[in-house]
Amino acid sequence: MQIIKTIQWKDDKVIMIDQRRLPLQEIYNAYEDYKGVADAIKHMVIRGAPAIGVAAAMGVALGSLGIGVKTFDEFYKRILRICETLEATRPTAVNLAWATNRMKAVCLLHKDLPIEQLKQRLKEEAMQIQREDIDSCKKIGGFGHVFLENGDSVLTHCNAGSLATAGAGTALGVLYAASAEGKVLTVYADETRPLLQGARLTAWELQKHGMNVTVITDNMAGALMKDGLIKKVIVGADRIAANGDIANKIGTYTVAVLASRHKIPFYVAAPTSTIDLTKKNGSEIPIEERDSKEVTHVLQHQITPDYVNIRNPSFDVTPAELVTAIITEKGVAEPPFEKNLKILAG
Amino acid sequence: MQIIKTIQWKDDKVIMIDQRRLPLQEIYNAYEDYKGVADAIKHMVIRGAPAIGVAAAMGVALGSLGIGVKTFDEFYKRILRICETLEATRPTAVNLAWATNRMKAVCLLHKDLPIEQLKQRLKEEAMQIQREDIDSCKKIGGFGHVFLENGDSVLTHCNAGSLATAGAGTALGVLYAASAEGKVLTVYADETRPLLQGARLTAWELQKHGMNVTVITDNMAGALMKDGLIKKVIVGADRIAANGDIANKIGTYTVAVLASRHKIPFYVAAPTSTIDLTKKNGSEIPIEERDSKEVTHVLQHQITPDYVNIRNPSFDVTPAELVTAIITEKGVAEPPFEKNLKILAG
Repeated sequence: MQIIKTIQWKDDKVIMIDQRRLPLQEIYNAYEDYKGVADAIKHMVIRGAPAIGVAAAMGVALGSLGIGVKTFDEFYKRILRICETLEATRPTAVNLAWATNRMKAVCLLHKDLPIEQLKQRLKEEAMQIQREDIDSCKKIGGFGHVFLENGDSVLTHCNAGSLATAGAGTALGVLYAASAEGKVLTVYADETRPLLQGARLTAWELQKHGMNVTVITDNMAGALMKDGLIKKVIVGADRIAANGDIANKIGTYTVAVLASRHKIPFYVAAPTSTIDLTKKNGSEIPIEERDSKEVTHVLQHQITPDYVNIRNPSFDVTPAELVTAIITEKGVAEPPFEKNLKILAG
Repeated sequence: MQIIKTIQWKDDKVIMIDQRRLPLQEIYNAYEDYKGVADAIKHMVIRGAPAIGVAAAMGVALGSLGIGVKTFDEFYKRILRICETLEATRPTAVNLAWATNRMKAVCLLHKDLPIEQLKQRLKEEAMQIQREDIDSCKKIGGFGHVFLENGDSVLTHCNAGSLATAGAGTALGVLYAASAEGKVLTVYADETRPLLQGARLTAWELQKHGMNVTVITDNMAGALMKDGLIKKVIVGADRIAANGDIANKIGTYTVAVLASRHKIPFYVAAPTSTIDLTKKNGSEIPIEERDSKEVTHVLQHQITPDYVNIRNPSFDVTPAELVTAIITEKGVAEPPFEKNLKILAG
C-alpha cells in the first residue's frame, strides 16, 4: 500500500514528485541524466535523508548509462566524478555518501565484468537500495509503534515521511504503523520554516493517509506543550553521530529542549544508514547554510526589507542527552547511545 | 528624534502607518471615526500593546466628536458603547482597557462641563496618553540600556519598537538607548510567524535607525544560542500578571525556555500600564486565538493543503521564573516580582 510515489526508476529515467510545488500542485519530474538528479537534490525537488540516498544511487546508475568508455579504469574514473557531483549537493545528510559509496563498491567488486553488464549491476544496486529503504521504513514502523498509545497527540517537525524516503517514512512511518494497529492519534506538524516542509509536505501526506493533522507555526509548540496538548515528539534525522547527537532540520533542537522541559519523550526515527560512527559527536557534523532568499521570501514573495542580514542554517544538532530513543530498522537504541548505536550500526 | 510616526492626531483625524503593508510599502491611513480605529486595531494596521492603548484613547476622542446629544448621561452612555467596541478588538493586551478606562474617568471627572468642552478634554487626554507613552519609552530606554554592553548580540521576538508604541519602543527602545550611549550591538530578530512582525517590522525599523540587524526564522534561535551567538534576550509584553508571568507574542515562551537553558538573561520591557494586578498569574490572562488563515497563508499565498486543521493562539505566557527583570518607565523590577511589581504599579 504505497500511497505516495516519491521516487521511481522507469524506462531508464528517474521520476520524482516535485516537492517544491506541493501541496498545491502534484507534478512529477523525469530526469534522464545524473546532472538533473544532482540539481533536483540541490534544489530540493527531493529531500529527506533516506530519499536523497536513493536518489543519489539512482543518479549514479543513470550517470553510468551515459558513459561511453571501454576500460574499467576509465569507467570508474567517470563514476567517481559522478559521485562527487552528487555528494556535493547537500553536505549534512550522510545517506548521500553512504549510497554513492555502495555504488562505488559495486564497481570495484565487479571490475572484471564487461562495462555494459556492470552498468546493469549498478542499476540493480540502486533498485536494491530503494527496496531496502522501503523495507527499512516498514521495520522502523514495527519497532516504533509500541512507543505510541491510542489517543496520543504527537508533535513532528519538518517531514520525515513517505516524501522523505522511498517507503512509508521514518518518523511518520511510525505514526502510520501505530495507526494501522488501530491506535487513533492526533498529529501536530510544525510548519518548519523556511521551506515549510511541515505545512506543505507533512500535512499533505498525513491527509492522504487519512490521519488527523493540525499545522502550527514553529513558535507554537512550546505553548501547546505547556497546555498539555502534546504527549510525544517524533522526528527524523539527517545524520547521527557515534554518541547519539542528532543533526536534523533546523528547529529540531528547540523542540527537544521544549520536550525536555515538559518531560515529553523525544524519539528519533532513522535507518542505520544515517548513523555516522566516524563523527564522535554532533560538533563534527557539517551544517549546510542555504541561500538567504529562503528566509527573505516565502513562495517567491518577499517578506523582509531589502538588504537585511540573514542567517539560514538548514540543520541543527540535538545533543544525545535530550533524546529518549533512536528507532532504526535493526531495533531501538536507548542510552547509553555510544555503546548501543555501535551495536546497531556495526 | 522621532524617526517613525506610528500614530498621530491631525485635524481631528487619526493617522496610522499601515503596518500590514510594511516593509515593502509605507502607506498612512487616515481614520475619521472610531469604528475605523477599532477596525484598524482588530486587523492589525496598528499593533503592539502601548500603541493600541494610544489608538484606543484617540478612538474614544474621535468617537466623542460624532456624538450629538445634550445631556451628560446620554453622552456618557454613548462613550461607554464606543469604549466597548474598542475594548473588544483584541482581548490579550490590557493597555486597551487601561486607556479606555482613563477616558471614562475623564468624563466622570468633568461631567459638569458643557459637552463641547468635555469633548475637548477627551482629545487632550488622548494627546496626554500619547505624550506619556513617548516619555515612558524614553524612560524605559534609560533604565534598560545599563543591562547591555558594548559588543552584545541581542535577540528580540516580534516587534516591541517604535511601531508598537507612540515613542521609541519598549524592548527596541532599550536597544536604541544603548546605541545612543555608543554601545555597538548586533540584533537578531525572530521573524515571528504567523504575521512576521519581526521580519517585516523590527527589521525595517532597526534599519531605519541604522542598527545592525539579522533576521532569522523562529526555529533558529536555539541553534544560535547553542553556538554562543546570543548574549541577551529582550522582548515586550502585552500583559503582565501580578506574579510576573508575561503574556506576549506567541513564541516568547519558547525563547524564554531556550534562554534559560543557555543561561542567557531574559529581559521584558513594558510600561506599567501593561501590568494587570487583578490577574494573579498568567493562567488568568485571556489568550486571543486569531483566524486560521494567518497560518495557512503567508502574504495572501496559501502554503498548506486545503481543509487542514490549524491552531493560531496569538500569545503565550512566559512564567515569571524565566524572567530576569522587567524594565518599566518607573524603574526595574527584579524577583520577587509579586512584591516588586506591586511597588512599581501601585
